[in-house]
Amino acid sequence: MAPTAAEQGGHPQHTKKAVGLAARDASGHLSPLAITRRSTGDDDVAIKILYCGICHSDLHSIRNEWANATYPMIPGHEIAGEVTEVGKNVTKFKAGDRVGVGCMVNSCQSCESCDVGFENQCPGMIFTYNSTDRDGTCTYGGYSSAVVVHERFVVRFPDAMPLDKGAPLLCAGITVYSPMKYHGLNVPGLHLGVLGLGGLGHVAVKFGKAFGMKVTVISSSPGKKEEALGLLGADAFVVSKDPEEMKAAMGTMDGIINTVSANVPMAPLFGLLKPNGKMIMVGLPDKPIEVPAFALVAKNKTLAGSCIGGMADTQEMLDIAAKHGVTAEIEVVGADYVNTALERLVKADVRYRFVIDIANTLDKVAGAAAE
Amino acid sequence: MAPTAAEQGGHPQHTKKAVGLAARDASGHLSPLAITRRSTGDDDVAIKILYCGICHSDLHSIRNEWANATYPMIPGHEIAGEVTEVGKNVTKFKAGDRVGVGCMVNSCQSCESCDVGFENQCPGMIFTYNSTDRDGTCTYGGYSSAVVVHERFVVRFPDAMPLDKGAPLLCAGITVYSPMKYHGLNVPGLHLGVLGLGGLGHVAVKFGKAFGMKVTVISSSPGKKEEALGLLGADAFVVSKDPEEMKAAMGTMDGIINTVSANVPMAPLFGLLKPNGKMIMVGLPDKPIEVPAFALVAKNKTLAGSCIGGMADTQEMLDIAAKHGVTAEIEVVGADYVNTALERLVKADVRYRFVIDIANTLDKVAGAAAE
Repeated sequence: MAPTAAEQGGHPQHTKKAVGLAARDASGHLSPLAITRRSTGDDDVAIKILYCGICHSDLHSIRNEWANATYPMIPGHEIAGEVTEVGKNVTKFKAGDRVGVGCMVNSCQSCESCDVGFENQCPGMIFTYNSTDRDGTCTYGGYSSAVVVHERFVVRFPDAMPLDKGAPLLCAGITVYSPMKYHGLNVPGLHLGVLGLGGLGHVAVKFGKAFGMKVTVISSSPGKKEEALGLLGADAFVVSKDPEEMKAAMGTMDGIINTVSANVPMAPLFGLLKPNGKMIMVGLPDKPIEVPAFALVAKNKTLAGSCIGGMADTQEMLDIAAKHGVTAEIEVVGADYVNTALERLVKADVRYRFVIDIANTLDKVAGAAAE
Repeated sequence: MAPTAAEQGGHPQHTKKAVGLAARDASGHLSPLAITRRSTGDDDVAIKILYCGICHSDLHSIRNEWANATYPMIPGHEIAGEVTEVGKNVTKFKAGDRVGVGCMVNSCQSCESCDVGFENQCPGMIFTYNSTDRDGTCTYGGYSSAVVVHERFVVRFPDAMPLDKGAPLLCAGITVYSPMKYHGLNVPGLHLGVLGLGGLGHVAVKFGKAFGMKVTVISSSPGKKEEALGLLGADAFVVSKDPEEMKAAMGTMDGIINTVSANVPMAPLFGLLKPNGKMIMVGLPDKPIEVPAFALVAKNKTLAGSCIGGMADTQEMLDIAAKHGVTAEIEVVGADYVNTALERLVKADVRYRFVIDIANTLDKVAGAAAE
């Protein structure tokens, strides 16, 4: 098991004091924790964190629902901030640059996956938090004041991309963008279905429209229709529990981005696809996915999984998002509200992503705790 | 329900006498039946059938295991023969040409699927047997002396392709060739797994080698190893029930052609795939396929179904097979042996495909029955 915070403080290279919001156990409650970050290495970028999105996987992690938690744990992998210092080998960034960090902070950088830009598939990939770093310490995420990251895993925020509304794109954005790119679901005129309208789904709708596609939201919640068509710009809305609406949409979609992490019946969803249609899973249902063979085989349909994306693709995604004005719909909250936000997230009571205003609120919470 | 044989004889356009081997009920037993074929229409090719392969789906169909049987049923969709007559609009063929007919004999020829060469996905596609033809009669397959087919659904046998060993390619060949083409599993140097070594699997091995791939057979039968490596030219053989062999092959394959129509555990098979690897189902297990979401999502893996292929692809497949010497391994049987062959097929007692010598044996069987 990786060292705890106290032990990290004793690591000879961990010279930078910082503060974060940490879970101490699986209760789901976060509280301030003084930590250290490593000094800026030759290839590193030191970042003052300004905003961090609250991803649904943060909730799974701090509650140890994936049974791999190391406590104390500081979550957060939708990080936006400003460069404070760079190592001598760093060429892409300089102090003052607006940058972001997503789900990973390092990889082996030499395997087949890294070579082709899929660092996310590298066996040596290091997650932004709750992962063992190269120096043996446990990584801490973005619910914190600062972070030091190898430049390969830092992306540039285009001028047109706001840091707060852009932060969630570092996870939610790349998670939907990457499979849309690699499965050809980014072609003008194609018909994209988006199953589930949460943090991932609402960004998928926006990218679909940015690519010039027809976008239909498929949701079990009729109440989301107005916002899907109005605010998000979807072309159509199908209530998945309405047999008539489902029937009318049969065989019309080229692809579906399935953002739902629950075990929903698959056969009707495959029925929505045209021949050669593709369903991409980006969620992780607990139980195995069940698909009738006929639903796949008869019309050459595909079920594919996808997990975040590589670094070049993440930069490309941010650039394209900025060009087309794609941002996340967010509710900015203070560090003192994070526990409430997490409780609301359990109830899916957010449209569509919480983002923590780290720079203006974390110090106050940490200071009050220290008094 | 489509008309029976007796009724077809009364159809004004059904002027050609022929004979076939028909199932009268779900017992699985075939016996001679006098039938009629339509007169050669303007776009039609009349074919004297010389050989017809026995596909495993013939067995399902005559036993009514898919609950859609119309009796009497003459099975057979791996047809090789010689053109006897062509309609006035036919430009691709002339009398004497060596030709083949696969799983379908017509489609609407005007929908989106037909337009892009996927006649097999056309809602109006007509199967070679047990399907309602445009004139309202029920189609009869290739266990018969002659057939009349629209020229679009007839392919040319290249000179180098023998009719007997080539006949099974019309179903088994295109079934594995089409997904290999469309999923990029036809690239020299890639590593292809072939799950199951029957009629489909053994052809997949040969195409993989023809494409310059590394080919590994995955099978539950260690006894098939020698033939897989020797006769078929596979590079490696993994016994799926041997945990050590499976472990050694983990993460090594770019794709797997899954020809098994049984519900086998999927997670270990996905473990064999590299990141971005693809498993293609060409069989139809009875129960839903179960896939752990993590097995798909974590390394961007794909499960896709595929069902035969379009006509241009079928011609392309035959041409490529002829160029590379890819043929089916067959056991030629007489018409009098078909019932025995079907019984042996139930027990998977064939390496790797039965082919009926129609021209030399069917008349005798039919004549004996008529006496």
